[in-house]
Amino acid sequence: MKITANEIKLVRSLRQKKFRDETGLFVAEGEKMVREAEDSNFAIINEYHIEEIGEKTMGRISMLSTPSPVLAILEQKPFPGKGDIMKLIESKPICLALDSVRDPGNLGTILRIADWFGMDAVFASPDTCDLYNPKVVQASMGSVFHKLFVRTELAEICSKFTECGMEIYGTYLDGEGLRTAPLSGNGLIVMGSESEGISKDITSYVTRKLLINPYPINSRPTDSLNVAMAAAIVCYEFRNR
Amino acid sequence: MKITANEIKLVRSLRQKKFRDETGLFVAEGEKMVREAEDSNFAIINEYHIEEIGEKTMGRISMLSTPSPVLAILEQKPFPGKGDIMKLIESKPICLALDSVRDPGNLGTILRIADWFGMDAVFASPDTCDLYNPKVVQASMGSVFHKLFVRTELAEICSKFTECGMEIYGTYLDGEGLRTAPLSGNGLIVMGSESEGISKDITSYVTRKLLINPYPINSRPTDSLNVAMAAAIVCYEFRNR
Repeated sequence: MKITANEIKLVRSLRQKKFRDETGLFVAEGEKMVREAEDSNFAIINEYHIEEIGEKTMGRISMLSTPSPVLAILEQKPFPGKGDIMKLIESKPICLALDSVRDPGNLGTILRIADWFGMDAVFASPDTCDLYNPKVVQASMGSVFHKLFVRTELAEICSKFTECGMEIYGTYLDGEGLRTAPLSGNGLIVMGSESEGISKDITSYVTRKLLINPYPINSRPTDSLNVAMAAAIVCYEFRNR
Repeated sequence: MKITANEIKLVRSLRQKKFRDETGLFVAEGEKMVREAEDSNFAIINEYHIEEIGEKTMGRISMLSTPSPVLAILEQKPFPGKGDIMKLIESKPICLALDSVRDPGNLGTILRIADWFGMDAVFASPDTCDLYNPKVVQASMGSVFHKLFVRTELAEICSKFTECGMEIYGTYLDGEGLRTAPLSGNGLIVMGSESEGISKDITSYVTRKLLINPYPINSRPTDSLNVAMAAAIVCYEFRNR
């Protein structure tokens, strides 16, 4: 399919949240990504192939340094309603919660991790970056198409987990060692922002503070790990008990 | 300290490997980074502070979307000589080896991980991206200043580890589960490129193939984890046995 000047303008505008919000659309690039989109229940509005629109035009609409062979415009999906979310939590799942993760690369990577380790959902505070940011979509390597993601007030989510008798875990520099801490097969794992960690409000719900020990094991960390790294290690530990 | 037009040109040129190679210099930005540089044995050529050079000029020389309060030009350090490397390996260390990791964000993140988990050194194949690439420096969060990094032919490194009676580990989609695999306190852990994994040549040295099991644990992965995520999990497991 060819591309019109208006379509070029549309694709480029979707780099901005404002236009993504207005149109309810977003972009995915690359063969693997578009294949995953096709296999998902996301609606594809248009697909542009480099052999049809030419390398130069693809270079103009692509976000990547090397223009992709294919780029698709997709329709965003609404988040599930409150009733469905509460029902999910009542089923005693194991989920991630992201408290103000603002970097799109980190969010995308965390979705990929959540997918790999079979987390049942990823909840994110309202100030977490936009799911449909092209950097999130790319870094997720397709997980954005099949991992349940909900942007919502985390306090509500936390109190529902508590009400259902599950633990709420969080990573802190003064937590107990992850390797030997008791972990259950369900609950909520909260990851904080890189600069500020988990907020005070959400900390009040946390029932178990965890620390990914640096080496040597008794040294106290002065800095924190990148939030996506920390999520990877914590999910690995939960899934290998 | 003020900044001259020539210095502005120099700082900007250091975004390119060619000029970093020619001058033997590189750039680090941000308060934490520059403090870590000051505390290291890297020579600082110049420091530029935003209150002295102004926001506009900092914006011109900064690589970051939000210009840093401080930016420093530093001298690169030569890699250690072969004799020192061989002596290090004879001391039975635990090290990482990176086989063609080309993404600077991944390399920087892996250095941070190697630092957190006290890996004794990071060896990287000649086609691994430049250590002094500004994206590597930033993603390392300062680890570039104190983690031993050597760009070298990995085959030589591998055969020295073998000669010294140590194991060589690598991650593969057909490996045995990391959690239950026997791991020793020393040896070489090879991480491959995201697109191609570990090369055939280096695979011939690997004595133990590992897999970070996805969940459910018996499902076979069709895709691989991001190399920095995989490095984080493998280092965590080695340091928590």
